[in-house]
Amino acid sequence: MRAERTCSPSAECRLFYAKIQKYWIFFSIFVIKYINMEIHPIAHFVSPFTSKFGIPKQSGLVEELEGEIVFEPAYRQADALRGLEGFDYLWLIWEFSANRHGAVSPVVRPPLLGGNTRLGVFATRSPFRPNPLGLSCVKIGGIDYATPHGAVIKVLGADLMDGTPIYDIKPYIVYADSHPDARSGFVDEHRIQRLQVEIPDKIAAGFARKELEALRKTLELDPRPHYQNDPERVYGMPFGKRDIRFQVKDGRLVVIENAGPKPGKA
Amino acid sequence: MRAERTCSPSAECRLFYAKIQKYWIFFSIFVIKYINMEIHPIAHFVSPFTSKFGIPKQSGLVEELEGEIVFEPAYRQADALRGLEGFDYLWLIWEFSANRHGAVSPVVRPPLLGGNTRLGVFATRSPFRPNPLGLSCVKIGGIDYATPHGAVIKVLGADLMDGTPIYDIKPYIVYADSHPDARSGFVDEHRIQRLQVEIPDKIAAGFARKELEALRKTLELDPRPHYQNDPERVYGMPFGKRDIRFQVKDGRLVVIENAGPKPGKA
Repeated sequence: MRAERTCSPSAECRLFYAKIQKYWIFFSIFVIKYINMEIHPIAHFVSPFTSKFGIPKQSGLVEELEGEIVFEPAYRQADALRGLEGFDYLWLIWEFSANRHGAVSPVVRPPLLGGNTRLGVFATRSPFRPNPLGLSCVKIGGIDYATPHGAVIKVLGADLMDGTPIYDIKPYIVYADSHPDARSGFVDEHRIQRLQVEIPDKIAAGFARKELEALRKTLELDPRPHYQNDPERVYGMPFGKRDIRFQVKDGRLVVIENAGPKPGKA
Repeated sequence: MRAERTCSPSAECRLFYAKIQKYWIFFSIFVIKYINMEIHPIAHFVSPFTSKFGIPKQSGLVEELEGEIVFEPAYRQADALRGLEGFDYLWLIWEFSANRHGAVSPVVRPPLLGGNTRLGVFATRSPFRPNPLGLSCVKIGGIDYATPHGAVIKVLGADLMDGTPIYDIKPYIVYADSHPDARSGFVDEHRIQRLQVEIPDKIAAGFARKELEALRKTLELDPRPHYQNDPERVYGMPFGKRDIRFQVKDGRLVVIENAGPKPGKA
């Protein structure tokens, strides 16, 4: 009775199927490409932070932090920066390259709220997002046109790890970007608690003045993983070619050792 | 004499080559993926601008412009927006989807400078960039949690075309993002010239009050392609479901017709 509904493809149909089967991978790639977008790094960032540990949670928190934007060979033309000297700030669109896997949850727990309160991923700047894109506003410190890597932009206040791929650089335009009176949600309500930082003279003597200031301001922001509060524990933070060791007790951070240039990095 | 340098691969070598040849496409994809990044749309934008024509050149230029962020099905969870109501502005990272091909030159000619002066692509926000990523700051007009598409964010002042894919949404944080005293290069030196706009009462009557205001402010920015200045020419600009016709003479833009709902779009 229902025989006419049995699947019995014609010879032509089977032939067509066999033909397209060979090409299914190209077809799938085409579909994925049409919906998704592929972007490529135009530069990478050079920073004293060689690991995620200690990086300020936003740009601008430590203006003393120096970094460099080094372009990929294809973009090492001074022409691409013509006119940039008239701007004070830059936007960087970059990749959370140490969190490449992206979001697994629609909610995240901002460290600013102690790591216990859940907020929507689109209401925070958490690195665990559907697309691992970072956005930072950095101050232009200068442009060095004569380096072995072509024109290099020196910037201040970045929150990027060393080696971070950068996908776009755009100038900061005040009328479009600056809203000094805007409400900033949970960020307004929970001011950053700064630690008191002590760096003994003997250790401080090993740093250049500017570097020491950047380190001090970074440590004030409390580089410990949130939740942790063990006054006995010795934390280590890579910073440039150094390995900083410290302890935190009652809101006071004391640097106890500068382990010096790490082997193989000197 | 030089026979020993002739290439004569061993049988093993040839076998190995034959084997990997089968997989070269997977290998190439792996290499490309490792260097490049693939991102996927999390939302798309709903705007009265159905073509590039007339879209303000930056966000915030026409705050009366209303638009909507409609999430892709995978991100239609109200949870993902928890905490957003405390913020006034949002960052959108989106795709210049009408300029998908990217940059061909390290320099571009900003319309603000009359289209004749060349500046570096990284010193402007031109859509012709190595990666076609757009960045816009928009005001949050409200969140509608009960739409057929899940939670929809209503925004003001966007410079996005209808249907634009959005890759990330981040809250605006004043201490990191606002620099009201920053220098903005060529943008500071060349103020936007606004046109005087006349919309006859008969045509104005066809619009809601807010829509009319957004249209007027948009027309003030001069939607004509730069270089063009023909007082006889009638320009057409799609705006929502309408087709606006106008002429420009001596800095005065006169709307001469509202061609009404376009066929098939009513």
